[in-house]
Amino acid sequence: MKLHILNGPNLNRLGLREPHIYGATTFEMYFKELQEKYKKLYPELELSYSQSNHEGDLIDVIHSSEQNYQGIVLNAGAYTHTSVAIADAIKSVTTPVVEVHISNTFARESFRHHSYLSPNASGIIVGFGLKSYQLAIESFL
Amino acid sequence: MKLHILNGPNLNRLGLREPHIYGATTFEMYFKELQEKYKKLYPELELSYSQSNHEGDLIDVIHSSEQNYQGIVLNAGAYTHTSVAIADAIKSVTTPVVEVHISNTFARESFRHHSYLSPNASGIIVGFGLKSYQLAIESFL
Amino acid sequence: MKLHILNGPNLNRLGLREPHIYGATTFEMYFKELQEKYKKLYPELELSYSQSNHEGDLIDVIHSSEQNYQGIVLNAGAYTHTSVAIADAIKSVTTPVVEVHISNTFARESFRHHSYLSPNASGIIVGFGLKSYQLAIESFL
Amino acid sequence: MKLHILNGPNLNRLGLREPHIYGATTFEMYFKELQEKYKKLYPELELSYSQSNHEGDLIDVIHSSEQNYQGIVLNAGAYTHTSVAIADAIKSVTTPVVEVHISNTFARESFRHHSYLSPNASGIIVGFGLKSYQLAIESFL
Amino acid sequence: MKLHILNGPNLNRLGLREPHIYGATTFEMYFKELQEKYKKLYPELELSYSQSNHEGDLIDVIHSSEQNYQGIVLNAGAYTHTSVAIADAIKSVTTPVVEVHISNTFARESFRHHSYLSPNASGIIVGFGLKSYQLAIESFL
Amino acid sequence: MKLHILNGPNLNRLGLREPHIYGATTFEMYFKELQEKYKKLYPELELSYSQSNHEGDLIDVIHSSEQNYQGIVLNAGAYTHTSVAIADAIKSVTTPVVEVHISNTFARESFRHHSYLSPNASGIIVGFGLKSYQLAIESFL
Amino acid sequence: MKLHILNGPNLNRLGLREPHIYGATTFEMYFKELQEKYKKLYPELELSYSQSNHEGDLIDVIHSSEQNYQGIVLNAGAYTHTSVAIADAIKSVTTPVVEVHISNTFARESFRHHSYLSPNASGIIVGFGLKSYQLAIESFL
Amino acid sequence: MKLHILNGPNLNRLGLREPHIYGATTFEMYFKELQEKYKKLYPELELSYSQSNHEGDLIDVIHSSEQNYQGIVLNAGAYTHTSVAIADAIKSVTTPVVEVHISNTFARESFRHHSYLSPNASGIIVGFGLKSYQLAIESFL
Amino acid sequence: MKLHILNGPNLNRLGLREPHIYGATTFEMYFKELQEKYKKLYPELELSYSQSNHEGDLIDVIHSSEQNYQGIVLNAGAYTHTSVAIADAIKSVTTPVVEVHISNTFARESFRHHSYLSPNASGIIVGFGLKSYQLAIESFL
Amino acid sequence: MKLHILNGPNLNRLGLREPHIYGATTFEMYFKELQEKYKKLYPELELSYSQSNHEGDLIDVIHSSEQNYQGIVLNAGAYTHTSVAIADAIKSVTTPVVEVHISNTFARESFRHHSYLSPNASGIIVGFGLKSYQLAIESFL
Amino acid sequence: MKLHILNGPNLNRLGLREPHIYGATTFEMYFKELQEKYKKLYPELELSYSQSNHEGDLIDVIHSSEQNYQGIVLNAGAYTHTSVAIADAIKSVTTPVVEVHISNTFARESFRHHSYLSPNASGIIVGFGLKSYQLAIESFL
Amino acid sequence: MKLHILNGPNLNRLGLREPHIYGATTFEMYFKELQEKYKKLYPELELSYSQSNHEGDLIDVIHSSEQNYQGIVLNAGAYTHTSVAIADAIKSVTTPVVEVHISNTFARESFRHHSYLSPNASGIIVGFGLKSYQLAIESFL
Repeated sequence: MKLHILNGPNLNRLGLREPHIYGATTFEMYFKELQEKYKKLYPELELSYSQSNHEGDLIDVIHSSEQNYQGIVLNAGAYTHTSVAIADAIKSVTTPVVEVHISNTFARESFRHHSYLSPNASGIIVGFGLKSYQLAIESFL
Repeated sequence: MKLHILNGPNLNRLGLREPHIYGATTFEMYFKELQEKYKKLYPELELSYSQSNHEGDLIDVIHSSEQNYQGIVLNAGAYTHTSVAIADAIKSVTTPVVEVHISNTFARESFRHHSYLSPNASGIIVGFGLKSYQLAIESFL
Repeated sequence: MKLHILNGPNLNRLGLREPHIYGATTFEMYFKELQEKYKKLYPELELSYSQSNHEGDLIDVIHSSEQNYQGIVLNAGAYTHTSVAIADAIKSVTTPVVEVHISNTFARESFRHHSYLSPNASGIIVGFGLKSYQLAIESFL
Repeated sequence: MKLHILNGPNLNRLGLREPHIYGATTFEMYFKELQEKYKKLYPELELSYSQSNHEGDLIDVIHSSEQNYQGIVLNAGAYTHTSVAIADAIKSVTTPVVEVHISNTFARESFRHHSYLSPNASGIIVGFGLKSYQLAIESFL
Repeated sequence: MKLHILNGPNLNRLGLREPHIYGATTFEMYFKELQEKYKKLYPELELSYSQSNHEGDLIDVIHSSEQNYQGIVLNAGAYTHTSVAIADAIKSVTTPVVEVHISNTFARESFRHHSYLSPNASGIIVGFGLKSYQLAIESFL
Repeated sequence: MKLHILNGPNLNRLGLREPHIYGATTFEMYFKELQEKYKKLYPELELSYSQSNHEGDLIDVIHSSEQNYQGIVLNAGAYTHTSVAIADAIKSVTTPVVEVHISNTFARESFRHHSYLSPNASGIIVGFGLKSYQLAIESFL
Repeated sequence: MKLHILNGPNLNRLGLREPHIYGATTFEMYFKELQEKYKKLYPELELSYSQSNHEGDLIDVIHSSEQNYQGIVLNAGAYTHTSVAIADAIKSVTTPVVEVHISNTFARESFRHHSYLSPNASGIIVGFGLKSYQLAIESFL
Repeated sequence: MKLHILNGPNLNRLGLREPHIYGATTFEMYFKELQEKYKKLYPELELSYSQSNHEGDLIDVIHSSEQNYQGIVLNAGAYTHTSVAIADAIKSVTTPVVEVHISNTFARESFRHHSYLSPNASGIIVGFGLKSYQLAIESFL
Repeated sequence: MKLHILNGPNLNRLGLREPHIYGATTFEMYFKELQEKYKKLYPELELSYSQSNHEGDLIDVIHSSEQNYQGIVLNAGAYTHTSVAIADAIKSVTTPVVEVHISNTFARESFRHHSYLSPNASGIIVGFGLKSYQLAIESFL
Repeated sequence: MKLHILNGPNLNRLGLREPHIYGATTFEMYFKELQEKYKKLYPELELSYSQSNHEGDLIDVIHSSEQNYQGIVLNAGAYTHTSVAIADAIKSVTTPVVEVHISNTFARESFRHHSYLSPNASGIIVGFGLKSYQLAIESFL
Repeated sequence: MKLHILNGPNLNRLGLREPHIYGATTFEMYFKELQEKYKKLYPELELSYSQSNHEGDLIDVIHSSEQNYQGIVLNAGAYTHTSVAIADAIKSVTTPVVEVHISNTFARESFRHHSYLSPNASGIIVGFGLKSYQLAIESFL
Repeated sequence: MKLHILNGPNLNRLGLREPHIYGATTFEMYFKELQEKYKKLYPELELSYSQSNHEGDLIDVIHSSEQNYQGIVLNAGAYTHTSVAIADAIKSVTTPVVEVHISNTFARESFRHHSYLSPNASGIIVGFGLKSYQLAIESFL
């Protein structure tokens, strides 16, 4: 089983940016922990990861998912709130996509309360810090 | 560790009501499965469950949580969208409360897109069917 | 054939409250007249009646309707405008529910123009005074 | 006693148009049944009927009602949602006007949820299929 | 100089309808007074008058104005608030059109506060009772 | 094959009204050109045309289309933005109706950006000047 | 009979400011013409005039009107759209106040379409250029 | 003279919950102080107090007030912002009801700025901390 | 202790204006009563009073308060609903300001439901008639 | 004459994605048909085509159009509804751009009813399936 | 060259009021620094300054500017968000007016995000602290 | 000191596009002038410049700023109004970012009145033509 974690804009700044909201761990560090943890628990699970600040790149990865992955864990960052194109991309593939957010987006600015992606996601996990990614992975197991 | 699953209005109709949205399992059947599963995996975890159609009852249970539970898994059903009082109750206790929804509320009527509870929840899990409850429990472990 | 008339909050004040809008007859007096009238016309028709100021009670009665009634005549009073939970309860049972209002809610405050219940009701009757209940009963005959 | 049934735009297409919403009976067929039914039950009741796709025609009929009828059963079709002029016409006569709708307008597009006519109607009956007309007639008896 | 007074829907009910708002004089009576008054003061002024409940009729008269009149005094009644078509008709002719209202529309229901016609009118006179028509005529002299 | 071009309010003023938006050709002149052009290209194509300023007339023509035409090219003018009744008429017939506009309605007043007709049209063509009609005809060929 | 013309902010700039909208005559020049005209026609009519850029000054003048005038012709300029206080002042006196505007406010920016004053005015005259003042005076005669 | 203080949802958490907003005194402690204070000042004044998290309970108490109290001091907590039913209950009794809030609700989340109760209250007192209750009592003396 | 009562626009008309809403006592009469009452009860309390129809005057008085008063009782009249400047003035001084209204503003026109001042006030008292001022004074004692 | 067809995000999934809305033909297949058809009819017409999921790429192509094409047929997909930048790009070139949509966007989710591009397009064609592209090409001939 | 700095309501409190937002320097102190700085750099530049809490005063100064100044640097404080009258005053003079704000108004309450003045300003400078004034002066040099 | 000027979509068209709004100078020409001017005045100031039509590119440059620049002068063009991602990027770095606009965005289409970037910018300069860039540079000196 192959799962891909796809991070959107500014998530490459994690650990550097607004640590009072997102904590001080970079995503690379966290991803390594995740891989090690699941290598033991579910050896058949293959985890990969990519990040881009470009809306079009996220769409390209989602399009490619049918050949490559059994599931996507997507944190589209700010594009969550503005991108109809990513929402359409999710709808255009049969791969299930779980939407995750590190912080509680509903406790922040009102423009972060609406997600174009949620209606097309196969599930949504919000506000558990980096653990949101782990719960998303669990949802596929 | 004690966790309480608290279900709101109409969730006693689960399995009977709109099975194309919610499936045909009653919550009691599902809760038993959960208990058995976790009895083996985490013997120290104590799961309890209650349901009420009364907004005031849900508030009373949340108030009582500080003495009784380390966490609440709350599916407040339709009160999610209309109850400032339950949102205030969550804020009035130190017990973490995870909000769950069986169906993808963001893919249904627009009045189900807004939750008064989410800003006060310690995490939100939406749209994984009954598995939403299990993921919520995992979030505490 | 069994029909149940279910009245919501403040309708126990009928005849006492704002008589220029609702008239001076209490609902108990009116219900007796109804029973007597239909005892003669439709002896096989069984009419019952209950009232509660608690949203949860109305939901409980609606849930119990599948075992007990062929139809419900529901005046949910103010909950008409605020209760998603009662709307869901109507949807969760197969019993047809006719929504009635004594006064013309569309000629009053704007927050009374919207009903959460109407989309789930099998019919809506508004503004005929107490005769609204009688027309609702006729709709089942 | 003379009652007039007044149908607005597109109701001449009844039985032909969207039968999954409105059924396959034309209004003329239904009107004949109504006349026959009431001829026996209430010989003194005189029922008449007209239809027009012109907003101005509906206004003309309503204006003429004081000389001709004791009541109007009005299904203004789509003009319900757009015509202040018909609403004003109802207010300009002393004849009571009961507003009826065949389908449950509140369960359809949102622009059908608002009626300019309702505040001026002496009662509103919605969603009972063609039976809505019969209930409206009963309300006058 | 020829001026035409054009009245819209329900203004044929003037004097009969809601006399606490519009007074008890019919427009025909008032029009005669106007004619007599101006016959003396401005013998060269020719006043004509028509009324219709049909939106299309009002449009037709406005279209015909370039051949017939030097100005139109238009009380479009309820169509004021709903008719883009009449607004377009005013724009499609070079004849100046003065919009008048008998009652103070801004002191009534909020849907009467907006006029589609006003931006295209050469002037607007509101709330002087029947005298609004006279002031409109003065504006042409 | 028979196609009918149906023009709504004020389009009889074309060529006379606001030539900077609509050009100086009357529709009759343009229609003749169209007929001559297609007589040569598609001799089997029969083109007819009518115009009315009355909403009800447009509805009547649409109703009659099933007996008479294989398609309607409809420019409902200002009724585009205000008429639920014409939208319903389109839905009530099986004849495909193509919605056309001469000017770019989306570049004009905001109340012209919404069309009640579009959701029921089989296609929409906007802003090509009089050529919009020709493209609509092409869509049927 | 004494009438007072009361002008609000920026109307002292008339003739200097945006002459394509308001013309090139100063109000003082126009007021003199008005006085001379009415001196002949209605010698018993006494016209006075004042202007202020201060909201509070306009309120003070309106308050003083019961002792001083039989009517006020008020062009409150921009305060028309923002001042509840002036609207209340009008309501607090028995002197009739006619609201006037030189330009057609409904054909300008949308924030000029709403007037707080109109519901309390005894009549409204808009868009006749400086002639609006004259028509307002006529309305008192 | 009998006055009843009626507290709504979560006010039983006072002193425990969000002390930076509401302070650390429980309402029971405060109520005792109030009783002692007024026992001396106004021996004829009888103060009672109850609290419930159930909307229906608050309605029941208000209904019972005509037999029991000369006035109610109501802090409906979160139901202030969502309950049309409590607003109707206040209107259904002749007992004057003074609405109080401990914190300045207008300085908090925007959904706390609207109160369904205020239009029906005989007075409103907001933001004086627990002293709001005392001022409400003073208003009856 | 010095307290200043500051009244805004039109409150100099109290007793003259709309007595069915505000009563027939002028504020000067009422202020004398207040002074006499408190002279006995709290001899150390010094009450002063001023009124202005000018927004800027109210701001000036509030600015001067730090030198002069321990508290302000402010009824800003219509400026309550339109003045950000007065709200800023309150925030710019350390003197506590209690907002009062004579009538129940929430039971009047919807534009009176919003106060720019409330978030900055140290307390709000609404709807007790002239007694609102007395309760505000009590709040300082 | 050179025309360029420019497709936006997810249109590379055409034929694969939601075939009940868009059909099962890929755009490449359709484009070949188009080329062959026009090669015969209009040998002088040169058709080219490109697609990108990147907003910036679409802007780059539009910028380059003045050197390369006499017209652009643009289906910007989801960017239609969110991209002010593409709208500005259209305005920044003199090349006419025709906006096309395969499905009837007005019959889908409400966020698809608004297009930032339409006001700047030289024409709009919606809902004719893939034939929309052909009609757009015809519009240039 | 003469430039006038015009400050609106509450800016006389600068240095005293909310120093965490505006700093602790009074404007008089800052203005002196400015004068000294520019005396050396641009001896031909004449700087003047005034402040008022009265909307009407600001208008009067702007009106007088054509005789007195080559430019105005305007910080209208809270009137920025509420005054159509000042916006009109700016439009009524040919003197260029640069709008400045000390704090970042877009990072504060939402009612501070809208400025009536900006569309009429010749430039807008926001959020540089007191340096905003200096940049505004630079814009004239 | 290093400052970077970062231009967003369509600003490469400057001098070519809509010269009546933006002037006929290309940004490269203007940038050279700026460099030469400041080389003399502030030899220690290093100015660089880049432009992209890709939202992701702008984010990448902002992310890289902490290593490279002491400040960014950002004209994000149309992305100003739609990009939460760029706003987040600004927040994710400590480099101060000054937002500039050439034209007065508040005097153009209403969708250009809102900026997602402004709340995170260290200052905003709007409407001074190309001089806006120079004022932004001055703000850093």
